[in-house]
Amino acid sequence: MNQTPALPDASTTSDPKASASSADEQDAYIAAVALKLDSFLAEKHRLLARISPETLVLIDSIKTLVTGGKRMRALLCYWGWRGAGGSPDSTAIIEAGAALELFQSAALIHDDIIDRSDTRRGGPSVHKRFSTLHTEQKFSLDEERFGHAAAILTGDLCLSLSEEMFSRIESGGSHRAREVFNIMRTEVMAGQYLDILEEVSGPSKPHETAVARAFSIIRYKSAKYSSEHPLALGGALAGAEEAMLTSYSAFALPLGEAFQLRDDVLGVFGDPAKTGKPAGDDLREGKRTVLVGLTIDSAMTHERDFFDQNLGRQDLTEAEVERLCTIMVDSGALERTEEMIAQLSAEAFAALAELPVSTEVREALETLGQRVVSRTS
Amino acid sequence: MNQTPALPDASTTSDPKASASSADEQDAYIAAVALKLDSFLAEKHRLLARISPETLVLIDSIKTLVTGGKRMRALLCYWGWRGAGGSPDSTAIIEAGAALELFQSAALIHDDIIDRSDTRRGGPSVHKRFSTLHTEQKFSLDEERFGHAAAILTGDLCLSLSEEMFSRIESGGSHRAREVFNIMRTEVMAGQYLDILEEVSGPSKPHETAVARAFSIIRYKSAKYSSEHPLALGGALAGAEEAMLTSYSAFALPLGEAFQLRDDVLGVFGDPAKTGKPAGDDLREGKRTVLVGLTIDSAMTHERDFFDQNLGRQDLTEAEVERLCTIMVDSGALERTEEMIAQLSAEAFAALAELPVSTEVREALETLGQRVVSRTS
Repeated sequence: MNQTPALPDASTTSDPKASASSADEQDAYIAAVALKLDSFLAEKHRLLARISPETLVLIDSIKTLVTGGKRMRALLCYWGWRGAGGSPDSTAIIEAGAALELFQSAALIHDDIIDRSDTRRGGPSVHKRFSTLHTEQKFSLDEERFGHAAAILTGDLCLSLSEEMFSRIESGGSHRAREVFNIMRTEVMAGQYLDILEEVSGPSKPHETAVARAFSIIRYKSAKYSSEHPLALGGALAGAEEAMLTSYSAFALPLGEAFQLRDDVLGVFGDPAKTGKPAGDDLREGKRTVLVGLTIDSAMTHERDFFDQNLGRQDLTEAEVERLCTIMVDSGALERTEEMIAQLSAEAFAALAELPVSTEVREALETLGQRVVSRTS
Repeated sequence: MNQTPALPDASTTSDPKASASSADEQDAYIAAVALKLDSFLAEKHRLLARISPETLVLIDSIKTLVTGGKRMRALLCYWGWRGAGGSPDSTAIIEAGAALELFQSAALIHDDIIDRSDTRRGGPSVHKRFSTLHTEQKFSLDEERFGHAAAILTGDLCLSLSEEMFSRIESGGSHRAREVFNIMRTEVMAGQYLDILEEVSGPSKPHETAVARAFSIIRYKSAKYSSEHPLALGGALAGAEEAMLTSYSAFALPLGEAFQLRDDVLGVFGDPAKTGKPAGDDLREGKRTVLVGLTIDSAMTHERDFFDQNLGRQDLTEAEVERLCTIMVDSGALERTEEMIAQLSAEAFAALAELPVSTEVREALETLGQRVVSRTS
């Protein structure tokens, strides 16, 4: 499933397009979010220490994960806030960014259980960390079962903490922002469900609608969650009018869609040395992406059958992976996907040009956006 | 693990101890909470229908579960509110009760995955419901894996909805109430972690501390969560002083502990026809309860060894279950547990007698409390 691809590092300040001041401002914001997360988790560390030192591993797991993020969602939230007139050093936007990052960590923890992914951000995933603890401590009964159970609980805790952080925000714009936060959570969970449902039900559904189904999934599990809602959240917090939020969406939704399509392409054709993912993993996992949908829709019948029967097989050989890739190329699906990315990006940047925001905000959003759609890892 | 035993039906009005008026009031409150949950879930149903009709099963699963509850936590919250001067027909206390019930449903969904329990409240558990859907629809890949993944997402959605409901409360007392709600969530998740940790690490820890460890677990995963915090939440919402909340705890904490000890006894010695649980299930699951701790601490060495080696074995025969039960009785552990229940109950009801609340509230709490500690199912 993996609705949460590795995000490009948006914290570097070397991009010439961003003015020095907006890059500095962005760095200051990221540092403030990190500080807020640190002090919040330290507070929870003290609470858990009073219950039992043995529970501290829950907070430590969350801390490791939330420290490793690239803050893309927090940054979109920040520029949405600034674009709607929010001031650079407000506590509200720092808390909102921290809440988004905690929510993302919670999603990753449960996502990795669902996908059976043992690595995350270069380290062990949370369930793997707990199963390793089980092995090292020579515990009884089953290590994998313990790992999954502990990670379910850690994800639940992280989800609660995300919301606890969000509830600290006090602001005039917070009713609308709360609404965005609520819709975001419901939509991403529904989108994730559609994603796992498509993995198991896709093969028996009409191949003509495979692309439409895959597109609906990336819209809810990724584009709205990772791009549209964070930007809107910042805007709403700063008291933006509905018209402003609509113009934010015109930029952020196609951007988020392009971002996910790029991620899908990299998942199959990316350089494993750059993406950190072994080649063929996405195919063995059985992810039914838009790229896959286009392949199924346009491949010759016997190739489509081969595709449908082999996608999701854990034991695919390298030769089989290669044949699946060849079908994706020969059917024209890869080319079509690249065209879609170009089209969505053009749509997003055209909308950005029309946004009623300052030049500084526009440039910052453009820098973020360009990184998202043209990345190679 | 099962931190969430079936609660006694507190909605019946036949108990002579509760005055007719408080029983009517309680019924009206329960009906109002049910109505609130219905309209809230109908709203979410509409949101999910717009995403895809295929996601409606998420809301339907939550609705089935949250409809089946006995509302014990909501009722404690209600009488905590009334005891601190809250009025009977306030929206705030209805929303708080609905939020507690949704939180409990979320906990049950994930708990059943962790415990691999296929039944809940007389029907299939949520993960079982999804794996059955998989089978019936002849989906591809693994049905159990799909069931677990879908139930993780449903639990996450339910957890978010619980909090969304809580965030609707607008009240002068809500800052302190929010604090209780936050601590409750963190503590129960930490307590659940200690519970699964004890299952795997208990056998290698000193048997002298088994009782203390088990007692700490029931305090956090059950007594505070199911009894102390709901009562405090209602009080805090109504603006109760700290002294009042402390006196609430003096009643609710020992009551919650007695409640969980009673549950543990019923889990092993209860009549399966009444409890709805097959005999021996708790022993096969490996729950390391206070009853088990007392057994391990007081049994003869060879019996303790038999106990430690067999507790948690999925394939225990009936004869082995019977031997484990006999060791519990012969070691005096069952008797000691009953003494503890009696002592904790006495402590709780002595504190109740001192509570600065109206006679009506005291009687309502006494009725609830008596049902909790003397139930047989």
